[in-house]
Amino acid sequence: MRPEDIPGFFATRAELDAERYVELDVTFECAGDPLHAAAALCSEQSTTQWSRVGTDEDFRPRYAARIVEFDATPRPAGFSYEIPNAPSGSVHACRVTIAHPHGNFGARFPNLMTSVMGEGMFFAPGIPIVRLEDIRFPASFLAEFAGPKFGLPGIRERLQAYERPIFIGVIKPNIGLPPAPFAELGEQALLGGLDIVKDDEMLTDTPWSPLAERAALLGAASARAAAATGVPKMYMANVTDEVTRLPALHDVAVAGGAGCLLVNSVPVGLSGVRLLAAHAQVPLFGHFPFIASFSRLPRYGVHSRVFTRLQRLAGLDAVIMPGFGDRMMTPEREVLENVCACLEPMGPIKPSLPVPGGSDWAGTVEGIFRRLNTVDFGLVPGRGVFGHPMGPAAGAASLRQAWESIALGRSLDAHAAAHEELRSAIEFFGR
Amino acid sequence: MRPEDIPGFFATRAELDAERYVELDVTFECAGDPLHAAAALCSEQSTTQWSRVGTDEDFRPRYAARIVEFDATPRPAGFSYEIPNAPSGSVHACRVTIAHPHGNFGARFPNLMTSVMGEGMFFAPGIPIVRLEDIRFPASFLAEFAGPKFGLPGIRERLQAYERPIFIGVIKPNIGLPPAPFAELGEQALLGGLDIVKDDEMLTDTPWSPLAERAALLGAASARAAAATGVPKMYMANVTDEVTRLPALHDVAVAGGAGCLLVNSVPVGLSGVRLLAAHAQVPLFGHFPFIASFSRLPRYGVHSRVFTRLQRLAGLDAVIMPGFGDRMMTPEREVLENVCACLEPMGPIKPSLPVPGGSDWAGTVEGIFRRLNTVDFGLVPGRGVFGHPMGPAAGAASLRQAWESIALGRSLDAHAAAHEELRSAIEFFGR
Repeated sequence: MRPEDIPGFFATRAELDAERYVELDVTFECAGDPLHAAAALCSEQSTTQWSRVGTDEDFRPRYAARIVEFDATPRPAGFSYEIPNAPSGSVHACRVTIAHPHGNFGARFPNLMTSVMGEGMFFAPGIPIVRLEDIRFPASFLAEFAGPKFGLPGIRERLQAYERPIFIGVIKPNIGLPPAPFAELGEQALLGGLDIVKDDEMLTDTPWSPLAERAALLGAASARAAAATGVPKMYMANVTDEVTRLPALHDVAVAGGAGCLLVNSVPVGLSGVRLLAAHAQVPLFGHFPFIASFSRLPRYGVHSRVFTRLQRLAGLDAVIMPGFGDRMMTPEREVLENVCACLEPMGPIKPSLPVPGGSDWAGTVEGIFRRLNTVDFGLVPGRGVFGHPMGPAAGAASLRQAWESIALGRSLDAHAAAHEELRSAIEFFGR
Repeated sequence: MRPEDIPGFFATRAELDAERYVELDVTFECAGDPLHAAAALCSEQSTTQWSRVGTDEDFRPRYAARIVEFDATPRPAGFSYEIPNAPSGSVHACRVTIAHPHGNFGARFPNLMTSVMGEGMFFAPGIPIVRLEDIRFPASFLAEFAGPKFGLPGIRERLQAYERPIFIGVIKPNIGLPPAPFAELGEQALLGGLDIVKDDEMLTDTPWSPLAERAALLGAASARAAAATGVPKMYMANVTDEVTRLPALHDVAVAGGAGCLLVNSVPVGLSGVRLLAAHAQVPLFGHFPFIASFSRLPRYGVHSRVFTRLQRLAGLDAVIMPGFGDRMMTPEREVLENVCACLEPMGPIKPSLPVPGGSDWAGTVEGIFRRLNTVDFGLVPGRGVFGHPMGPAAGAASLRQAWESIALGRSLDAHAAAHEELRSAIEFFGR
């Protein structure tokens, strides 16, 4: 790029029709002139060559991505990460906002991903380290998506569960247990107080646990538990599979009595999620496999909240995400950002239920609630319910008792004195 | 995990039926006991709880992922990357091979991704830094996939192009140019010597360049170029879109005369690629958007060759990948590994044409050929053809002249003396 080409990739917001652009917050580290690098970042993700040879034309005014915010700071220490074949030169850390014309790709997930987190973002000359931090959509773009069919309000209504978190449990042993004993464990946990029992994200339709059989058994189990307790209960069936099978597995699971479904968002692709959401007759929960592979390092890749926003847009009624706690290795701020991305206003798109998960049990409930400062979340323990020494019903009860103690403003230990399941959980998991 | 639980996640290869396992090469850095961390890595991606409470059972012998190779070295300097909320303790760098039972997930891409690069891989206690380096499949697993319908041999046959690289060009300006002048540029480049002209990976079916119109114009252009030159010529149409539209866009493009198709693999999802490949009547090329987001850092994420193998398995006849050259910031060794993943034996799965790309022009051809040491590759310049000062026909000719110089064993400069297009390319791009 010649120096005279650089201004064509910069603009002020006042010059642009906001409805024609998505905005991208990007941080990057570059070698050499940061203005040149920023212009190249825009060019590579849009008009890499903006005129024919020998023709007086310029496609940039309408089609170029443009920098609308720019900040650069020298980094005398060099790049944050050692990258083989990184360019040499003096290093700057930059923070920019790019206005990218969405007419270049349209309201389609694969096309959006290609343009805003594809070759152009990760192979701009001089920029070995780059991270897409956030994305914002104008109303005209959001209007092209249906979003969640049920959303947080629809899940609450179906469960008749208001002004409290949603209690979900991952049935364990997760892999290897045949459908009949698996359903038995699920029924116990529903009777003990869970709203929803779910398949592990790795448990799908397999020869040793066919989804049709599992869903029928757990559908019947959740109906019995609902009848016994007088409140709605759900089984969440994991329909993750090749995209061609998603609608049929949805039908099998719902026919069996599944009250909601689980799908692994990035593995099936956001486009697969959208396809399933269009077909869904029950709420859809998304799980987070693979997202950490590009979101954990603070200065490279794509921030996880970008994928939370895209999952909500794709139609997930609930988004399971890495939560608090040592095992999840996720900064508290990032968990909060992802929860906000589910709940905050997004034009006509309904809010999704955020489900921050990770090795939870009765003793972690209060910490989650205090940090989130809302009852609009789901809890999703596995071993915290199904590894409880008194069994799954007690594991479920211990969670509800933990919530009662919060609702009553009583300390967990004081409440445990009168509740054996909670006391046992503290003794077993609290060590 | 208790110390006595650790051995259940280790095995020797002799103890295991190799046909029941995929093998994963993994590097990681952990805090604390590396044997404990390795066992946790296996547990988290398979049997996270291997018995019911109070039941004497153990699902590990059949369902657990197990360490079959293990090596650990202390890292007194600590973790390679600063990770917020990383565990504390003495750090080891480890290299392991995991045998993971593929019956847990089956021959399905979303299920495979969930199990071998999902929550279990990236959220194992004590392991903040982990990278899936490679994957190997047994014959019984490969047999479940169709792989490429045409593959490298099929592409050569359709083009009648043997014992030389395949010359492909990305038509530029890539974004904004209407179909008619776009097709005109493509036709010139085909007449000048390209085998294939292609859409940019960001150019899809858009209101300002509808695929039906573009494919019909370029189908006719490639037919005319074939008639004029007496050799087959192809237009590669980019059908990337929501998965529900892939078969219809395939049909539109092929009806218009596209000789092959482009799809962005990770954005549409490997499952979407498999769906399209099952439907395809012409060779399918895959492009690499998003892969760098999880593969660039040497010690974290997923190595790009894993996705090259998966793309081949999903049925791509050709895999476009980051190639040599400063802009691509990809170590030479990684390019070679990805080329090998396309060409090396893979049971009944045909080889795919590797297309290492990145800011190529006539002057980079010899370097690519010498490094790869094979003629089985594709070249995919953009500006190197369409930014040539004498126009696209000359740009294409300059590439063919560069290849002639190699075939004749003559230096590029000597050959350029008698070939104006090559001379002009050297003057313009070689500065």
